[in-house]
Amino acid sequence: MALIVQKYGGTSVGNMERIKNVAKRVAAAHNAGNNIVVVLSAMSGETNKLVGFTNEASEFPISREYDMVISTGEQVTIGLLALVLREMGLKAKSFLGSQVPIITDSQFGSARIESIDGTRLLEELNSGGIAVVAGFQGVDPNGNITTLGRGGSDTTAVALAAALKADLCEIYTDVEGVYTTDPNICQDARKLDKVSYDEMLEMASLGAKVLQTRSVEFAKKYEVPVMVRSSFNDAQGTLVCKEDTEMEKVVVSGITYNKGEAKISVLRVPDRPGIAAKLFRPLTEAGINVDMIVQNISHDAHTDLTFTVTNTDFKRAFKIVQDISGEIGAKDIVGDTNIAKISIVGAGMRSHAGVASKMFDVLSGEGINIQMISTSEIKISCVVDVKYTELAVRVLHEAFGLGKQEVTEEMV
Amino acid sequence: MALIVQKYGGTSVGNMERIKNVAKRVAAAHNAGNNIVVVLSAMSGETNKLVGFTNEASEFPISREYDMVISTGEQVTIGLLALVLREMGLKAKSFLGSQVPIITDSQFGSARIESIDGTRLLEELNSGGIAVVAGFQGVDPNGNITTLGRGGSDTTAVALAAALKADLCEIYTDVEGVYTTDPNICQDARKLDKVSYDEMLEMASLGAKVLQTRSVEFAKKYEVPVMVRSSFNDAQGTLVCKEDTEMEKVVVSGITYNKGEAKISVLRVPDRPGIAAKLFRPLTEAGINVDMIVQNISHDAHTDLTFTVTNTDFKRAFKIVQDISGEIGAKDIVGDTNIAKISIVGAGMRSHAGVASKMFDVLSGEGINIQMISTSEIKISCVVDVKYTELAVRVLHEAFGLGKQEVTEEMV
Repeated sequence: MALIVQKYGGTSVGNMERIKNVAKRVAAAHNAGNNIVVVLSAMSGETNKLVGFTNEASEFPISREYDMVISTGEQVTIGLLALVLREMGLKAKSFLGSQVPIITDSQFGSARIESIDGTRLLEELNSGGIAVVAGFQGVDPNGNITTLGRGGSDTTAVALAAALKADLCEIYTDVEGVYTTDPNICQDARKLDKVSYDEMLEMASLGAKVLQTRSVEFAKKYEVPVMVRSSFNDAQGTLVCKEDTEMEKVVVSGITYNKGEAKISVLRVPDRPGIAAKLFRPLTEAGINVDMIVQNISHDAHTDLTFTVTNTDFKRAFKIVQDISGEIGAKDIVGDTNIAKISIVGAGMRSHAGVASKMFDVLSGEGINIQMISTSEIKISCVVDVKYTELAVRVLHEAFGLGKQEVTEEMV
Repeated sequence: MALIVQKYGGTSVGNMERIKNVAKRVAAAHNAGNNIVVVLSAMSGETNKLVGFTNEASEFPISREYDMVISTGEQVTIGLLALVLREMGLKAKSFLGSQVPIITDSQFGSARIESIDGTRLLEELNSGGIAVVAGFQGVDPNGNITTLGRGGSDTTAVALAAALKADLCEIYTDVEGVYTTDPNICQDARKLDKVSYDEMLEMASLGAKVLQTRSVEFAKKYEVPVMVRSSFNDAQGTLVCKEDTEMEKVVVSGITYNKGEAKISVLRVPDRPGIAAKLFRPLTEAGINVDMIVQNISHDAHTDLTFTVTNTDFKRAFKIVQDISGEIGAKDIVGDTNIAKISIVGAGMRSHAGVASKMFDVLSGEGINIQMISTSEIKISCVVDVKYTELAVRVLHEAFGLGKQEVTEEMV
């Protein structure tokens, strides 16, 4: 008998028929003798509709009132699932974030979970019931409804699993798991059986939209095993868990890409202390997240500085940099939105040399020019012209032997 | 400076444009120096959609989970109105039933308000803010969301007005006020300037759909003056208030009709004590509301008993009566769904004789047969064949001088 937190996303509860399908899965897991806590998203499209209303209502809607509006979608689905489960003869009860309670800070629209009291949920489980909890929402210490930001239901599920010391957190979605790369681009993409928290974090933040980054951080911190799987079939999913020795043998686990960024180059700035700080402080103050930063060695006491921001922040960031270009003595500012970031991720990289050079070789072999490079312990990212995205992903996927055949160490 | 509770119904907040229109009215009342509490319904059609979902989810959906689902519509509109008001530079804050709090019993789907703590709302008003409260919902002592039944937002508004000792409760709707009869049937129908609580109660329960009956009971109990008016123009509405001497001069205030009932006759039952109890107890136990009951004098120690129930309860009621017909010794059971109840209502009836006989004369003058008669202090109702509904309403409206000309006592 295990305690399992099951989270179902928007497409999995997109209409009544699908909610009934979810109820069958929940009932099966419950009837197999497990204690089940279900976390639901809103019906797909519903939250977008509500956000659309708030945009009509206000130019800058993010506020206490925004969360009041957009938190209703989950309230609908949890009530409906509880009704269906009861109709099936099971004991089920729905819980809002405020009823659990899931306490957050007061950062409306992107609140962070501060604490969860699992008492009421455990009471429900101990009395033989199924607890159905609204994802994406919490309550601040003053009783105001808060939301956790897009994809926040994943975080709700993992945080509940941590608070309840669950044996497993299952994330049901519309894909069968985490793949070696995007199956839409590379038909040879293979589903991974296991991936480490760190690999998943790199994949999530690099654009693989399976799990919200914050939920993976939570899972890592509290060592919650997370299974990503499809709500539409019974295929085995991907387990996101602590790194084990088996994982280290696999040098590269996946290839990801991100077309959502743009590049800004500050040309020929004097190479002296304080320039980078002067450049990035106003961006930070404007709430603009800078991703990659590359600075080359200097020539004639001048250097070029290039960084990337999300496409949505590009215009604002470009203007800010232009405004301070005189102050920092830059010769020119150049922007480019036609870029893509291609990354290879793998826990085994730590102990394997030659991964980076192989990546560069493969890309240059296809005539793909690398504009920027950035590395971490378990990841290497290259910025290339966006038109090469699909080609780059495919050739790297093949070169690192990630296709449907067996992967061996020798392939590196 | 007055404290005013304004309630806007579903059609008044049916889309963003209309919500902005409501915001303008609220702002005008606020800027005129009044303290404003706004109570909102869900967007028109929204609650029906949610109820539809619950019917798909469960055969008998009414439960804690049902209220969880159908209470979300008001949460959306209050958040949106607060956003619009803030966008206009006003201080506004939305409140759920649980945040006020509005404490109810645990009768899900048709909960009754037990108490309202006005402290938080008054704080908001005293700090110059506008409080926007979700209608239709409350919270039970265990923190479960409850709803007050269809039209419950009227009750929320009146109850809040009572709790806050408001000077006025304005009910904004899609009609301009309370009419002498249905303007769709009788083009001569005239809007009333004033109507007493008791008259309004008779009109509400008899089918005039302007105000929920329970809200009028609340208004009467706490003597809350209620103004019914249109949210689409600035026309003077109808004030529902305590009876005054002026009102008593008007013998008949309005003509109402109700096509929503059916008649069941139990023929030739032995006229002995206990028969009526035996007949009506099982109906009460089945939750069936019996409206009119008529029993004539007996012949040969037998009598006929006729009563009406709502059309929706008719089949169930008929079956129950059939099942016990043997036990009570009835000769036959006859049902008829083709009936309408036509009523004349007026506080002045108390002190005026001859109103009933005039009603009967007028109907018989048109060849309309009266099937049942029932009277109260300020109302006379006749059941007639449904096909005569419009004719009966028109001739009574004219006979009692309710048209657009001046009404005088002499007309009775």
